[in-house]
Amino acid sequence: MYYPKQVLAGFCAGLLSRAGVGAQDAAQIADVLTEADARGVYSHGVVRVEGYMACVQSGGIRPNAVHTVVAEGPGFARIDAGQGLGIPVSLEATELAIRKAKQTGIALVTVFNSHHHGACGHYTLMCARQGLIGLAMSTGDIIMAATGSAESSIGNNPFSYAVPAGAYGEICYDVAMSTVAAGKIAMAADEGRSIPLGWLLDPDGNPTTDPGQQAKGGPLVPFGGYKGYGLSLMVETLAGMLSGGALLKDIHAWNKDPEHSGNVGHCFAVIDPALVSPGIDIAARAEHVIAELKASRRAPGVDRICFPGELEQEKLAISLARGIALPPASEHALARAAALVGLTFDAQALACGSENRRF
Amino acid sequence: MYYPKQVLAGFCAGLLSRAGVGAQDAAQIADVLTEADARGVYSHGVVRVEGYMACVQSGGIRPNAVHTVVAEGPGFARIDAGQGLGIPVSLEATELAIRKAKQTGIALVTVFNSHHHGACGHYTLMCARQGLIGLAMSTGDIIMAATGSAESSIGNNPFSYAVPAGAYGEICYDVAMSTVAAGKIAMAADEGRSIPLGWLLDPDGNPTTDPGQQAKGGPLVPFGGYKGYGLSLMVETLAGMLSGGALLKDIHAWNKDPEHSGNVGHCFAVIDPALVSPGIDIAARAEHVIAELKASRRAPGVDRICFPGELEQEKLAISLARGIALPPASEHALARAAALVGLTFDAQALACGSENRRF
Repeated sequence: MYYPKQVLAGFCAGLLSRAGVGAQDAAQIADVLTEADARGVYSHGVVRVEGYMACVQSGGIRPNAVHTVVAEGPGFARIDAGQGLGIPVSLEATELAIRKAKQTGIALVTVFNSHHHGACGHYTLMCARQGLIGLAMSTGDIIMAATGSAESSIGNNPFSYAVPAGAYGEICYDVAMSTVAAGKIAMAADEGRSIPLGWLLDPDGNPTTDPGQQAKGGPLVPFGGYKGYGLSLMVETLAGMLSGGALLKDIHAWNKDPEHSGNVGHCFAVIDPALVSPGIDIAARAEHVIAELKASRRAPGVDRICFPGELEQEKLAISLARGIALPPASEHALARAAALVGLTFDAQALACGSENRRF
Repeated sequence: MYYPKQVLAGFCAGLLSRAGVGAQDAAQIADVLTEADARGVYSHGVVRVEGYMACVQSGGIRPNAVHTVVAEGPGFARIDAGQGLGIPVSLEATELAIRKAKQTGIALVTVFNSHHHGACGHYTLMCARQGLIGLAMSTGDIIMAATGSAESSIGNNPFSYAVPAGAYGEICYDVAMSTVAAGKIAMAADEGRSIPLGWLLDPDGNPTTDPGQQAKGGPLVPFGGYKGYGLSLMVETLAGMLSGGALLKDIHAWNKDPEHSGNVGHCFAVIDPALVSPGIDIAARAEHVIAELKASRRAPGVDRICFPGELEQEKLAISLARGIALPPASEHALARAAALVGLTFDAQALACGSENRRF
């Protein structure tokens, strides 16, 4: 099935509206999630609509929360998201940081009392598409073992940066601090495959190749050992400590504990190269760097050397031309989401197919 | 041998002065390097004096270069280091960023036309000791394979952040983007040990357990695979592209190519929590986070869970009380450095011993 992005977004916005989300917020959320799917980042796409709706319905998320700027200067702001949805406030925070950076050269906006906000890369790409360097990060509930810990003790706190890159579009790095996502381990468990050491601990804190240990409470492992742990703590610092959001185990899992406010924190930083480095063409320099990296001698079996975000950018172009190819898990989640508000997910009606529908 | 920090620093400053470095710069460099040794970060300690002197003597580093602020606003600056020494200009840039952040909440200072500046963590600790959050990074010559590359194509670009942490002192994360430092692989080669997969490629781009492949041109491997590669590219962006410094293979290796200016770039960002988050006690929140991490259930064989920089902080206290215990490689390097300017490194005369000398 291939879904035109606008059609899929319209359907998702409708679901969110029926759950009580205001029309503008619903449209924004649907746009951000379908853009993630279009980039092939299915884990942060429409598969999340169901969870957002569940939180709204159970009171953990206030669907039409007021956002309040509680501290502000020319180059910074701190925003109370009012226990509302993460995506609308993050769009607002990013736009505010962009406006400020264009005045001051560098700007920082933090957000607290928020929730899951989709892919961090969405916000940094907004910056890069305007010729700016963007950084974005978010806290999350504890699902990863700090180095030395046997249990979940810190989030796998995602981090993104993006840079305008001229003919190459944008560099967009967007990672979580665990070696792999929890979903990837769950998939291995479903398929009866073992996993490499370094992905998961068992509930006693021993490295394991058995993906089934995750369901028994085994925590994710930071990528690169203590180096990934330390980066997760950086995100906890900037998006959690500094924002005034909840910290570590006080962050509620929006998808496990939907009736409580997550009090997630975010941090957005934007740099305007035209102001801080006048005369330097950052996009041209990024092009030069990418070209040199791509021209380096390749390891055996490697077709090409990629820059961060390159594959997602290519996927986006394909998805916009052909429609978004949703994985079955996303379709199933949409069907469950529709059922929450008494609707039906009719894939045939929404999809274009590759042959029989124009879009 | 244990060396009182002041005595060791005085000796190193004397060597640098004899090589043509001005007295104030020499004292600053000696202080920064001996502080790294005192923290146990020997790779960035006085072992580097020899290389700095060689660069100064061969003309690759201009010992008394003028630093020029080429762009400036309330929250940012860009500094031309004039092909001078990396440490003095980095101290100046950090102090400037601190002054600006205390006015604007967040500040960014970049530096180009610079050289190796010791441990990035030195500059972020300066911030944290004043109650500020500091970030620092630096480009370096290509010694690591971008993911998919068979050869050195990017630096292992170091990155540090530090946060005031109340009773715990400071969180100070300071890492390079390779799985391990080149020196660790060289040591394994010297001792005839094999190394784990994931540290090094052979010159054809194949993963190898033979540390001897490094001397044949094999590149380092990013930590966490593409995640570490992408972080290295972030540093290349902020400390290289944005600063106006050289990029990738145009960066000269100060220790391999001492007669050419390295044109290394640095980037320093400072946040004043008191301004951007009034009412939030960042040090108290850091204490809370550290205490919770330390209280989490430990994996088998783990005595305690550490925060980044904890072990170095403990080592610093010991070194200041007892003297700095230099490894033989550092002593040998000091002997060679002394010989460059017709002096002798007399370890006995400088050391305090643990029994027979007060300091």
